[in-house]
Amino acid sequence: MKRRLLLVSNSTLHGGGYLGHCEKQIQEFFGENVKRILFVPDKLQSLGYAVDSIHETADPVEAVKKAEGIFIGGGNTFRLLKALYDHNLVPEIKRRVLQDGVPYMGSSAGTNVSTVSINTTNDMPIVYPPTLAAIGLVPFNINPHYLDPDPSSKHMGETREQRIQQYHEEPNTPSVLGLREGSMLLVEGQKATLLGTTKARLFARGKPATEYTPGSDLSFLLAEGV
Amino acid sequence: MKRRLLLVSNSTLHGGGYLGHCEKQIQEFFGENVKRILFVPDKLQSLGYAVDSIHETADPVEAVKKAEGIFIGGGNTFRLLKALYDHNLVPEIKRRVLQDGVPYMGSSAGTNVSTVSINTTNDMPIVYPPTLAAIGLVPFNINPHYLDPDPSSKHMGETREQRIQQYHEEPNTPSVLGLREGSMLLVEGQKATLLGTTKARLFARGKPATEYTPGSDLSFLLAEGV
Repeated sequence: MKRRLLLVSNSTLHGGGYLGHCEKQIQEFFGENVKRILFVPDKLQSLGYAVDSIHETADPVEAVKKAEGIFIGGGNTFRLLKALYDHNLVPEIKRRVLQDGVPYMGSSAGTNVSTVSINTTNDMPIVYPPTLAAIGLVPFNINPHYLDPDPSSKHMGETREQRIQQYHEEPNTPSVLGLREGSMLLVEGQKATLLGTTKARLFARGKPATEYTPGSDLSFLLAEGV
Repeated sequence: MKRRLLLVSNSTLHGGGYLGHCEKQIQEFFGENVKRILFVPDKLQSLGYAVDSIHETADPVEAVKKAEGIFIGGGNTFRLLKALYDHNLVPEIKRRVLQDGVPYMGSSAGTNVSTVSINTTNDMPIVYPPTLAAIGLVPFNINPHYLDPDPSSKHMGETREQRIQQYHEEPNTPSVLGLREGSMLLVEGQKATLLGTTKARLFARGKPATEYTPGSDLSFLLAEGV
């Protein structure tokens, strides 16, 4: 299993620039061998990033086949997943990452689509993808931008934890790792490590939620397969 | 058009009991002629409400055919819409409300499913309904629990307004009425009136958002048809 993933909660941290809070981890992750990174936005339009942008290629599948590294950024998760299916990119990205060891970095929506499904996205369902099943690079789900309840709030909408608990009311639903802003997960083969500056909250179906500090070994989450 | 709808933003307002903030409007809405109300929860399980609960009937479609009034409450909008389709209730509810004039009250998720689609729900997509198209009792969408941005927040997730703007980046998307907690919309035939204690924020595709105070006539939203 050559899998190498860097799954980031959020693209921008309060007070910082785009990907500023994970710049060091990104450099370590892609290293010196990767010279060009293929960028996949939620809309196949230009975002002005200094990498190969998949929407500028005539053949997106071919671009994935040739990619040295893949970065899928933020945006609307429903639109992103629909775009991935519309362009037949899901199986090819999965093959490249799991079989060829091409490093995959996701941020926010790009983290969601790397997991089992987008059932635990925070985004508004502005479009209808053909399925909520995602690329499946790991055998669990992630909730990016994980947010603790605000005890002073008078808003009566469900808390994030309540929403994830609703998900676990459904049968056969995988664990959900709540990645707070500032945290990220590094996956290397069968090893998973929590990085960043904030704790993560893990929800396993039928069990109490548990907290993990940066540096924690979360490899047990990968044991279920893929 | 016999349509009579009471579309409530939220089931519980901070500091009050279940439906306490709209008790008066509910009594005025159903009046003295309606003796029994059919209640449709998001899961077809008992919620202990003093009305006919649809999940206790052997034949949910028949229950809708006989209903004097319909109330669809809160819960997860995806699970609710999927349950409505799984039990073939969408066309029958639409017929009863639009043709027979059966009063329909929705709250939160029950308000979402009464509109064109659930594309503007706040809920987590914990299940995959066969479509996001909803009952279509009005020709626009509603965002219940509408929430203004918190200027003191350091959280970097999209604001509610940004999410609705993302929806309007998609072609042919209807207007979205943001109903803040405490507000509700009364629809009688071709007349729509904002009720409650809070303003509503209207998003029309390609136009600046506008605010409406309680008592405002929003009938123009119904002019697009249905």
